[in-house]
Amino acid sequence: MDMAGGQEALRGFYLDELTVGQQAVFAKTVTEADIVGYAGISGDMNPVHINEEFAKTTMFKTRIAHGMLSAGFISAVLGTKLPGPGCIYLSQTLKFMAPVKIGDTVTARATITEIAAEKKRVVLKTECLIAGKVVLDGEAVVMVPVRS
Amino acid sequence: MDMAGGQEALRGFYLDELTVGQQAVFAKTVTEADIVGYAGISGDMNPVHINEEFAKTTMFKTRIAHGMLSAGFISAVLGTKLPGPGCIYLSQTLKFMAPVKIGDTVTARATITEIAAEKKRVVLKTECLIAGKVVLDGEAVVMVPVRS
Amino acid sequence: MDMAGGQEALRGFYLDELTVGQQAVFAKTVTEADIVGYAGISGDMNPVHINEEFAKTTMFKTRIAHGMLSAGFISAVLGTKLPGPGCIYLSQTLKFMAPVKIGDTVTARATITEIAAEKKRVVLKTECLIAGKVVLDGEAVVMVPVRS
Amino acid sequence: MDMAGGQEALRGFYLDELTVGQQAVFAKTVTEADIVGYAGISGDMNPVHINEEFAKTTMFKTRIAHGMLSAGFISAVLGTKLPGPGCIYLSQTLKFMAPVKIGDTVTARATITEIAAEKKRVVLKTECLIAGKVVLDGEAVVMVPVRS
Repeated sequence: MDMAGGQEALRGFYLDELTVGQQAVFAKTVTEADIVGYAGISGDMNPVHINEEFAKTTMFKTRIAHGMLSAGFISAVLGTKLPGPGCIYLSQTLKFMAPVKIGDTVTARATITEIAAEKKRVVLKTECLIAGKVVLDGEAVVMVPVRS
Repeated sequence: MDMAGGQEALRGFYLDELTVGQQAVFAKTVTEADIVGYAGISGDMNPVHINEEFAKTTMFKTRIAHGMLSAGFISAVLGTKLPGPGCIYLSQTLKFMAPVKIGDTVTARATITEIAAEKKRVVLKTECLIAGKVVLDGEAVVMVPVRS
Repeated sequence: MDMAGGQEALRGFYLDELTVGQQAVFAKTVTEADIVGYAGISGDMNPVHINEEFAKTTMFKTRIAHGMLSAGFISAVLGTKLPGPGCIYLSQTLKFMAPVKIGDTVTARATITEIAAEKKRVVLKTECLIAGKVVLDGEAVVMVPVRS
Repeated sequence: MDMAGGQEALRGFYLDELTVGQQAVFAKTVTEADIVGYAGISGDMNPVHINEEFAKTTMFKTRIAHGMLSAGFISAVLGTKLPGPGCIYLSQTLKFMAPVKIGDTVTARATITEIAAEKKRVVLKTECLIAGKVVLDGEAVVMVPVRS
């Protein structure tokens, strides 16, 4: 056990372990319970997410998930897999391409596109896909620790 | 009652009702329950959010909220207040400036900076603040319906 | 096991088993998690419940629980204890007397005040108390099944 | 930014801004997740809400939502829209007219029927509707702040 009571074992990648092109994914089927739960935590009670009657009157024809819920799946990849625990989230761009509906399985994928070693910064292409189609596109910048 | 069974009453602003400089806020005290709930829904089980022992070993010294949770408060402002229900979220940039800790009250504020009437697009400066200090900065682009 | 697969065992009192003066209680310590959870399910994001900074500017000086959350504890007594499963909730009056704060233990108490056997209706005095002080007062009317 | 750190921006209507006939709505599709979540927070574990086998043996033939959950949607309208944050909930009457089932979209509507300016009290007709049919009827009394 290390000095920090074994918590070191929870850390993700160090900067020197990363390479351009490295990739990781997280995927989840979006349920009605996820959407109502997310609405409650975020405060985003937009009826297009929580009111089927209203949603029917929109171009989506049914309730859709919050776009920021899919953004959370990107955060899950970055924070738990690549680079994983220990990295610091600096910025994210998000382009919402298509709606996510109840029952859709969203795969969030992060791919390292650039490593700026001197600044300890890593740039990743971040996408959410449903059946191979991009529904959320963007780029993340994270700071990654160097081995001490 | 309108054709859509009264759902029209839930709509937000139409494009012609918006002006540059218009502002709205949503604010919430971030609780431990919000963080664990958000972790569960997003899948972002990064120990810095859910493991106090691990978090103590980081520069933050305690658990911090997911950056994307604050981003959700921006979505709450846009989706429920300005422009409100009926708008479509096109893109968002996020710059994470400082951590949010349990007990912090985060105020998400959106300010219209540009209205491109021909494209039905509205640009908003979006910020999250704690005690007046910006912890999350960025810009949103939404499409706003025109009155039919 | 009865015809309904044992579900009969879950039923509460039948009308002939009830008497005026009969009483039951349910009690729960109201936590921050209960309040944020209730806000999410009900959609009631009033900042006095979820925003400590806002709440400080009110006469309450801190976040308070939703009054309807305490009303839910009355529903818990009626629906699980007296008269219990099988009764039908017809009406309720609620008079909010004092705020409920995080950490308060609320005791919901129902006392039968009237039994109208021919209509199968039972009237109950319903109160929520904190340390013996009434914070929510009112009256419930329920319809209670007769033994078949 | 005002004295209270921007929290003033979250306030709802002041008394002088209200008129008899003014109306607001909140609407939500009631999901299974809402019902189990509400059962957990309120403690109302009446099997008619959480046990499909039991519910089948009742006149409802399936699980129904807690009546008090619909009452919470009324609280959402009053506390977030009309009169909105800053008002104080004094009393509420509730008449449960018909059950709410999983998948039903409930619209809570509040209409100002009386303004007692000297007492700062406002009376509102409060209804919950499913497809235009009243399932919960009643009246609320709130105290509304005057502009300082």
